[in-house]
Amino acid sequence: MRVGVLTGGGDCPGLNAVIRAIVRKGTQEYDNEFIGFRDGWRGPLEGAVRPLDIPSVRGILPRGGTILGSSRTNPFKVDDGVRRVKETLAEFEVDALVAIGGEDTLGVAAKLWAEHDVRCVGVPKTIDNDLNATDYTFGFDTAVNIATEAIDRLHTTAESHMRVLVVEVMGRHAGWIALHAGLAGGANVILIPEQRFDVDQVCEWVRTRFRTHYAPIVVVAEGAMPKEGELIVKEDELDAFGHVRLSGVGDWLAKEIQKRTGKEARTSVLGHIQRGGTPSAFDRWLATRFGLHAIEAVNEGDFGQMVALRGTDIVRVPLSEATAKLKTVDPKLYAEASVFFG
Amino acid sequence: MRVGVLTGGGDCPGLNAVIRAIVRKGTQEYDNEFIGFRDGWRGPLEGAVRPLDIPSVRGILPRGGTILGSSRTNPFKVDDGVRRVKETLAEFEVDALVAIGGEDTLGVAAKLWAEHDVRCVGVPKTIDNDLNATDYTFGFDTAVNIATEAIDRLHTTAESHMRVLVVEVMGRHAGWIALHAGLAGGANVILIPEQRFDVDQVCEWVRTRFRTHYAPIVVVAEGAMPKEGELIVKEDELDAFGHVRLSGVGDWLAKEIQKRTGKEARTSVLGHIQRGGTPSAFDRWLATRFGLHAIEAVNEGDFGQMVALRGTDIVRVPLSEATAKLKTVDPKLYAEASVFFG
Amino acid sequence: MRVGVLTGGGDCPGLNAVIRAIVRKGTQEYDNEFIGFRDGWRGPLEGAVRPLDIPSVRGILPRGGTILGSSRTNPFKVDDGVRRVKETLAEFEVDALVAIGGEDTLGVAAKLWAEHDVRCVGVPKTIDNDLNATDYTFGFDTAVNIATEAIDRLHTTAESHMRVLVVEVMGRHAGWIALHAGLAGGANVILIPEQRFDVDQVCEWVRTRFRTHYAPIVVVAEGAMPKEGELIVKEDELDAFGHVRLSGVGDWLAKEIQKRTGKEARTSVLGHIQRGGTPSAFDRWLATRFGLHAIEAVNEGDFGQMVALRGTDIVRVPLSEATAKLKTVDPKLYAEASVFFG
Amino acid sequence: MRVGVLTGGGDCPGLNAVIRAIVRKGTQEYDNEFIGFRDGWRGPLEGAVRPLDIPSVRGILPRGGTILGSSRTNPFKVDDGVRRVKETLAEFEVDALVAIGGEDTLGVAAKLWAEHDVRCVGVPKTIDNDLNATDYTFGFDTAVNIATEAIDRLHTTAESHMRVLVVEVMGRHAGWIALHAGLAGGANVILIPEQRFDVDQVCEWVRTRFRTHYAPIVVVAEGAMPKEGELIVKEDELDAFGHVRLSGVGDWLAKEIQKRTGKEARTSVLGHIQRGGTPSAFDRWLATRFGLHAIEAVNEGDFGQMVALRGTDIVRVPLSEATAKLKTVDPKLYAEASVFFG
Repeated sequence: MRVGVLTGGGDCPGLNAVIRAIVRKGTQEYDNEFIGFRDGWRGPLEGAVRPLDIPSVRGILPRGGTILGSSRTNPFKVDDGVRRVKETLAEFEVDALVAIGGEDTLGVAAKLWAEHDVRCVGVPKTIDNDLNATDYTFGFDTAVNIATEAIDRLHTTAESHMRVLVVEVMGRHAGWIALHAGLAGGANVILIPEQRFDVDQVCEWVRTRFRTHYAPIVVVAEGAMPKEGELIVKEDELDAFGHVRLSGVGDWLAKEIQKRTGKEARTSVLGHIQRGGTPSAFDRWLATRFGLHAIEAVNEGDFGQMVALRGTDIVRVPLSEATAKLKTVDPKLYAEASVFFG
Repeated sequence: MRVGVLTGGGDCPGLNAVIRAIVRKGTQEYDNEFIGFRDGWRGPLEGAVRPLDIPSVRGILPRGGTILGSSRTNPFKVDDGVRRVKETLAEFEVDALVAIGGEDTLGVAAKLWAEHDVRCVGVPKTIDNDLNATDYTFGFDTAVNIATEAIDRLHTTAESHMRVLVVEVMGRHAGWIALHAGLAGGANVILIPEQRFDVDQVCEWVRTRFRTHYAPIVVVAEGAMPKEGELIVKEDELDAFGHVRLSGVGDWLAKEIQKRTGKEARTSVLGHIQRGGTPSAFDRWLATRFGLHAIEAVNEGDFGQMVALRGTDIVRVPLSEATAKLKTVDPKLYAEASVFFG
Repeated sequence: MRVGVLTGGGDCPGLNAVIRAIVRKGTQEYDNEFIGFRDGWRGPLEGAVRPLDIPSVRGILPRGGTILGSSRTNPFKVDDGVRRVKETLAEFEVDALVAIGGEDTLGVAAKLWAEHDVRCVGVPKTIDNDLNATDYTFGFDTAVNIATEAIDRLHTTAESHMRVLVVEVMGRHAGWIALHAGLAGGANVILIPEQRFDVDQVCEWVRTRFRTHYAPIVVVAEGAMPKEGELIVKEDELDAFGHVRLSGVGDWLAKEIQKRTGKEARTSVLGHIQRGGTPSAFDRWLATRFGLHAIEAVNEGDFGQMVALRGTDIVRVPLSEATAKLKTVDPKLYAEASVFFG
Repeated sequence: MRVGVLTGGGDCPGLNAVIRAIVRKGTQEYDNEFIGFRDGWRGPLEGAVRPLDIPSVRGILPRGGTILGSSRTNPFKVDDGVRRVKETLAEFEVDALVAIGGEDTLGVAAKLWAEHDVRCVGVPKTIDNDLNATDYTFGFDTAVNIATEAIDRLHTTAESHMRVLVVEVMGRHAGWIALHAGLAGGANVILIPEQRFDVDQVCEWVRTRFRTHYAPIVVVAEGAMPKEGELIVKEDELDAFGHVRLSGVGDWLAKEIQKRTGKEARTSVLGHIQRGGTPSAFDRWLATRFGLHAIEAVNEGDFGQMVALRGTDIVRVPLSEATAKLKTVDPKLYAEASVFFG
């Protein structure tokens, strides 16, 4: 059996660990051959390939990024895309595909399998942990560790210097990184996209904290929004790519807190630092097991499935189900954390 | 309600996070008062206490160790122990106890509740992750991260210098740390207590690895034992405390590999480094949630229970059940990992 | 002898290590007594003190921040300030002062000694490493390590995802952090305050880098300025504290690069993360030795001096000299690094 | 000009950084060509080479180990060795050699230049920092950071669990790592090879420490020896390679402390973990600058020289001088640190 592998979407620590596990187990236990497609769905679309065998995956386990490259190319949005993908698969005699990616990448896999008989197995990937079908996605634990370590560093300043310290972390639609890192880091305020925040309430928590002679640390997800409907970013401040990061909520909030409380505020914006570098042990474990189970599914002919974590088990769920709904932060969990606010 | 808190057994990152969560939520949401018992069950036994309120738990979240101290004191092994414990609780007007500890500490709590009506709630703690009733215990993820980072460091030497590198990690009865860190670190051999190892097989893997021009890394749990029944430690090499660490399996194995393969071998013995220092984000999250749910159980009067992790939920299980059986590594999981051996 | 100790200015990892070394050696070898002044020169000015003895410095070595607190209070800018300082010193029977701080804090010490006979010894502190009289200041190595680790994490993204990654690091007047972290992190462009940059040249390096199929990483000091004299920050964007951070050069540059090259750019702004947390081993070594030598100078009656590092030796230099000139990046060093640009 | 590069001796973080800097600057500024010799002096001896150009050094800066491999081969100890080296150099038209290594590797270079006109420039490398001609060698700061982090982790256990914690670090002939990491880590006892230790004195410090209700941490260099002349290792316990590590001083000392004080003791033996993994920022900076200045010396025809650090400057010193004398810990420095003992 000849298996194609591709990785799509944003960077996420653990991609290489998945690839390595697939190739090791596939080669040794099932005698599979592999083809690496470059840059996500661009690979099958344009016939961009690279060799993929055991020597080529040696040493990649602890490395962030992906040796296959990535892109956001979607064959369904390209003229004749599906036909071209199928031609490439035929040309390289690819029997099945493992697609590693987030909602978009797996959505393509789901549709290719459901509507075009392309034999696909999916491996979920999102640093934001917002996929409904799995307890956790790899990359998330690494991001949370990085953000937590950043918050830790701010604490010593908060103990001795009276400043408001704002940390902006990733999470455009779901606040998982903010919630976990904020709780693990002992933040005094955690703001997530799921719940619009009230700047005056934030300022109240800030003032409460100062009364303990210890400065406040505010963790804010990049997608968090103020209640009052104030526009953080005007239309014309969006860049060509529609991203707002360039004048983000962290800076805006720091300015507002300064203005309203009269206390100096400082911002750290972690940005892509959360997406790169070596994966945490948990993420390597999860990514490796995802890879082992994905290639097992391929060799059992169980297509249209995605691997997922349930408790300590790796299970399979239909790709269609997996990409159906965003997993946002449960209000009960957020309420549980709020005992530490202020 | 006045609640006593104690921590027993070996060190484990996350103990302070549990204590802090209990005190924060108990004080703020239930108006509980707290008493800290010193050094595990020695506290209630001898009336050794310390104040425990919100100011006293400030800043302890990221700190390893336990502000309450610890010991292996068991009131059931002390003359009149139970009566003395009950007297202390009466003296300090303690309505309920939260016991944070491993099999021994929780075993005492289970028996005190079942047989002596002492109102206890348990929080499981073992760095070895060998408690049956919970998916994970806090401290484990930190230990695995530390061991993985150590293995990572050995890889660069393995790439450029032809030496066998042996790492001895914790795990006297269960191989969880060795398995997770070995898999996450890309070890070439992983040896666990659950399965006696064959030194010749290990040497064969070592030789295989050298043929890839890359030196082997061998991860061995401190409790792993060779098949051939060779005594690693003679009776008289046991120290006064019955511990064998002082001439452990790592050094023994390195010597054997040198002797049998003629290749230079080096050992690293991580020891207590795996037990200390700041907890990982995952462990802080888990420990904090354990604390929040334990004090909730106390205030709901649900005694004789232990908090546990199931998937992403915190649940309650009877203390008696929790301490009944050691959770060892499933042979299937070990087999899954063996694709990376050699 | 009774010695007062104070810490002034911004946060800097290693302050506690200095305090601990002073107290340990002073108490044990010279039988000194100590008084901790709170919040820099505010302590002597307002008589704000705290006890300072061996138990109170236990465990603080690895902790960032300062147990004495800090401020930017300057007694020379306060009515009757010098007299009030001298009264406090008389009241608490303080024989000598150790002032730990940057240009401002040490400038006060220099003047108090030179003009008012207040017996002072200085310990230099600046995360920016821009003090002329010493090879290095503590805190700098920690900041460089943090920034380097951040750049490391971006590399894996740069290898697999075609984005321009901009990192803004500290350094308002001197580019030492940017230069060292940029070189250590393998940045493709390093921009420092000492040399105005040409955005078109930066874009040229960015394009060159993309041709190697590897995305560029741009390290920019917060005080770096474009050549063309474009105002990055308009007057009215300065906050009440005169700081420009809230819409800094990193974001500005990322926007310009996007506009001019058409490539997506992302920014990370490390901010105060560089100032906090546990000091690196080098900084603990340096801070500890500074403390040991400062208290030695006090007990030898060698006032008006500052400790400094020369090679591997701790020496003394006059306070007046030390604070006279900013140490900026030597153009030759910057040129040496430029072999890695593009 | 065609330049050969080789790395010899034990592993040391920063080797790749040196290689990269040499190749980048040599290629870009001097139009040099490069040849990589494999495995130290085995390369020139046996004609074992690999290509070495800018693409081949891309991405290696943060990686431990050496892409050129290493060995302890000495052409002067091999029949006809020098003639064979010269033949290889002639065959590959190598005009000059950069040898990166410790005493042995550089000793060969010194002799080849002095006695056989082989044009060599040296770059000093020793994790132990025991080279006399330079303030620091790269790799040392990394090793100290790793050992310090390990000690940090033990502190939380020392705060809450009453055990003696012994850490064995590298340093067979010089105690630099033990001294720096012990001081930076706040160890209570530091034992170095330069000064035989008195076990009873160590036990006295251990007892003193316990009286502060805080357990002692003992840092011992692998080459440290007890005063009483007790043989730690009997002749027949030396392995085939003459190494004693396999039953080292750390375990021996822990046993003795247990026996004499009745307190439980635990050992961590860091071993090769100190030699591998990514270099610290300082070591990358130093290694990079060493590389830049070495290739400059080559192109200026200044042979028989070694680059060295003096303060913040890179200077050149004769190879003969550099390898003449071991730099051991100055008794004054050790005395300075002893204020923290006990």
